[in-house]
Amino acid sequence: MQRVLDYLKQNESRSIQELCDYVRFPSVSAQPQHRSDLRACAEWVVKHCQAIGLQAELCATKGHPIVVARTPRAKAQGARRPHFVVYGHYDVQPPEPFDLWKSPPFEPRIEGRSLFGRGASDNKGQNLAHLKAVEAYLKTGTELPCDLTFVIEGEEEVGSSSLEEFLKERRADLLCDAIIISDTGMPTPKHPALTYALRGIAAFQVTLHGPSRDLHSGIFGGSVDNPAMALCQLLGKLRDKNGRVTIPGFYDEVAPLSAYERKQFARLPFKEAEYRKFLGVPALFGERGFTPIEQRSARPTFEINGLTSGYQGEGSKTIVPAWARAKITVRLVPNQKPARIIRLLRQHLKKLCPPSVRIEIKSGHGAEAYLVSPTGPQAQAALRALKLAFGCEPVLLREGGSIPIVNDFKKILRADALLVGLALPDDNAHSPNEKFDLDCFAKGQLMSAHLWQELSRGG
Amino acid sequence: MQRVLDYLKQNESRSIQELCDYVRFPSVSAQPQHRSDLRACAEWVVKHCQAIGLQAELCATKGHPIVVARTPRAKAQGARRPHFVVYGHYDVQPPEPFDLWKSPPFEPRIEGRSLFGRGASDNKGQNLAHLKAVEAYLKTGTELPCDLTFVIEGEEEVGSSSLEEFLKERRADLLCDAIIISDTGMPTPKHPALTYALRGIAAFQVTLHGPSRDLHSGIFGGSVDNPAMALCQLLGKLRDKNGRVTIPGFYDEVAPLSAYERKQFARLPFKEAEYRKFLGVPALFGERGFTPIEQRSARPTFEINGLTSGYQGEGSKTIVPAWARAKITVRLVPNQKPARIIRLLRQHLKKLCPPSVRIEIKSGHGAEAYLVSPTGPQAQAALRALKLAFGCEPVLLREGGSIPIVNDFKKILRADALLVGLALPDDNAHSPNEKFDLDCFAKGQLMSAHLWQELSRGG
Repeated sequence: MQRVLDYLKQNESRSIQELCDYVRFPSVSAQPQHRSDLRACAEWVVKHCQAIGLQAELCATKGHPIVVARTPRAKAQGARRPHFVVYGHYDVQPPEPFDLWKSPPFEPRIEGRSLFGRGASDNKGQNLAHLKAVEAYLKTGTELPCDLTFVIEGEEEVGSSSLEEFLKERRADLLCDAIIISDTGMPTPKHPALTYALRGIAAFQVTLHGPSRDLHSGIFGGSVDNPAMALCQLLGKLRDKNGRVTIPGFYDEVAPLSAYERKQFARLPFKEAEYRKFLGVPALFGERGFTPIEQRSARPTFEINGLTSGYQGEGSKTIVPAWARAKITVRLVPNQKPARIIRLLRQHLKKLCPPSVRIEIKSGHGAEAYLVSPTGPQAQAALRALKLAFGCEPVLLREGGSIPIVNDFKKILRADALLVGLALPDDNAHSPNEKFDLDCFAKGQLMSAHLWQELSRGG
Repeated sequence: MQRVLDYLKQNESRSIQELCDYVRFPSVSAQPQHRSDLRACAEWVVKHCQAIGLQAELCATKGHPIVVARTPRAKAQGARRPHFVVYGHYDVQPPEPFDLWKSPPFEPRIEGRSLFGRGASDNKGQNLAHLKAVEAYLKTGTELPCDLTFVIEGEEEVGSSSLEEFLKERRADLLCDAIIISDTGMPTPKHPALTYALRGIAAFQVTLHGPSRDLHSGIFGGSVDNPAMALCQLLGKLRDKNGRVTIPGFYDEVAPLSAYERKQFARLPFKEAEYRKFLGVPALFGERGFTPIEQRSARPTFEINGLTSGYQGEGSKTIVPAWARAKITVRLVPNQKPARIIRLLRQHLKKLCPPSVRIEIKSGHGAEAYLVSPTGPQAQAALRALKLAFGCEPVLLREGGSIPIVNDFKKILRADALLVGLALPDDNAHSPNEKFDLDCFAKGQLMSAHLWQELSRGG
């Protein structure tokens, strides 16, 4: 194993040059004019994988191709070796607006320990770190304790629309013990992180219909209900003064935070005043009894995403609007089921709705929350690998949003995802002047090298 | 007096022909191409006034001219004679959409007792009725018990923008005991009406500011307040389940409805099921303890005219919106003062606003409510004239909206307006196939003839 680690150290500057080569491809999946750049980038990844000793191929999809690269499989062994899929993506966000970049987005520039360029952090640097680790195994003749399959797609920034079908087609080859993804973040360079949970979601649209047309508020106002007021009163009842959602049964299935998890969250660097200033709010507000970190990642929420009713232009228009509408998303946590929450919300809204208006509820997309037990063997293995690589105690994170591909992997491959992201909060992912920290790059390679040992060690 | 009434009857068909001549002018004040038609119409009114014995002149304004016509003033009398101003307007609403008219809007058509044509009811037929009454006095040599000045403007349908300045300039000539306006409605042909009160208004815009930009509801949702939810909760508290506005002090100055007024309202024809169907609402809703007629005309209201926040397009967008806004108008009744209500609302909203959002309140236009005592001598005189003309007991109405010119007359001439409108609910004012009922025309002339007697009789 020491040979693997030494190899990574000895080849660091070459690895950085290779990352520069990778970043030079303007593989912007959202922009049709970059289609050939995406293909060229994918071909570069295939060749790179082949050069380091992987069996790599370019798989055509309806969209941009997916690179699949496998470690050479050991022949005729007795016990089944563990198999892990490493997921990454070679496509990047659009670089616009160009004028905010200090150097051209596709001409990588190194300043101190930062490598600037679109895609450096999201996700080229992070998936290359895993390739560098396996290269070290293969080039030093060190036996990998497991089989690995890299799946590096080209449509992550545009919704991964080909991935689900691809996973279904290749399911037999891809069945595995876990999926490893480095595409999330860590709070500081001293806080390597395992993201072990994601929130789910349920989307709704609620419309209250009043009069058949906008009415003159002077002539009719007072004798009919105002749908905008009715909507305010209806929605206003759905959250109490303690920030709790008041829909009966809403919290019934919520998995409580364990003492271990809360202790882990308390270790995270967090300054309320800075956070408040960053968001620009006069004061924070959230569910009483939970810290802001817990509120935004581990607790369900009821958010109004939009309100529409009546007149919205300049000045005033004296009407009782015919209807009022709210767009709503509910963030779910383990083990809330979207279908049940949708049912509870419908029932409650219908019960609360006054007879003076007619309610119409449309439900939109739903996604379950996601959780890998942070005390389970795989999560603990990932934490050990992070600690060995970074030399400090890793933290446990929950992500407040959802990552749809994680649900796809779970559904199709029946395996959990270990999210060991290497991005720092100031990496400017999706923004001008994206960069990747070269220490994260180096330590990410070490983490990956250790990870296969730790994961294969068994429970 | 009998000679006056006989004259009106004998000259009925000529009067109808004159109304047809008047309606033929396409005096559409909103449309610049009709500027010369407005002038021609105004000149026709001047000539008509002169022909019946009035001293008439065309007064230029920045907009369309105003016709002023005076009865010949009696010379050197001892006691001051009463002076009344009769207001009307010769301009009309645009006739569009033409294809919904059964006959061309400016080619008057008589069918049964209806005269169809744009402006027939609003307001040519109604102001001509008053001119016909004074013609009967002058042509029969019957002494008028008062002086009259007709003010017939050409910009009523576009906001009467020249009237205020005109009234100020001519104030000395126009000072009077009351202004008579026939430009409102009566519920049925059997219910001649005096409209004795109007509601006032105060307009606001309330914006709650949360984060400095729309936030990702997954990453941040739960740890900051949602301005759309905060707005719903804030506004939702401003009306209770009995339909009462909860702003402290809101009702303090409200003049209670007298037993006499409530009894008058109870006489009005009203069928709840028909009204509900007409408005298209599943059920009526209003302040408990008052009938729908009282709610919409004699009670103050708090109406949300529009709501705006976050994402309003198709599908969903998972954000905590940066801000949420409501446009609000409060309808006021005698003796609520707009300035005081604005102050109370500001205070209350600021008190209710949680620290997690910043509130911004803009106040817009305000207008006081208007009331002529229905038991006062002028109102009673008008009611007697209506009864004499129509042969049935008149009703008392309050109008839920405001009529800005009434406030102008009150402010500049310090005189009350008596609103003795002759329009029926099915007259299609502002709509295709506008018509005027020829019985209302004839009885309106009788009413006007009686009115000068009744008003001049004194208290």
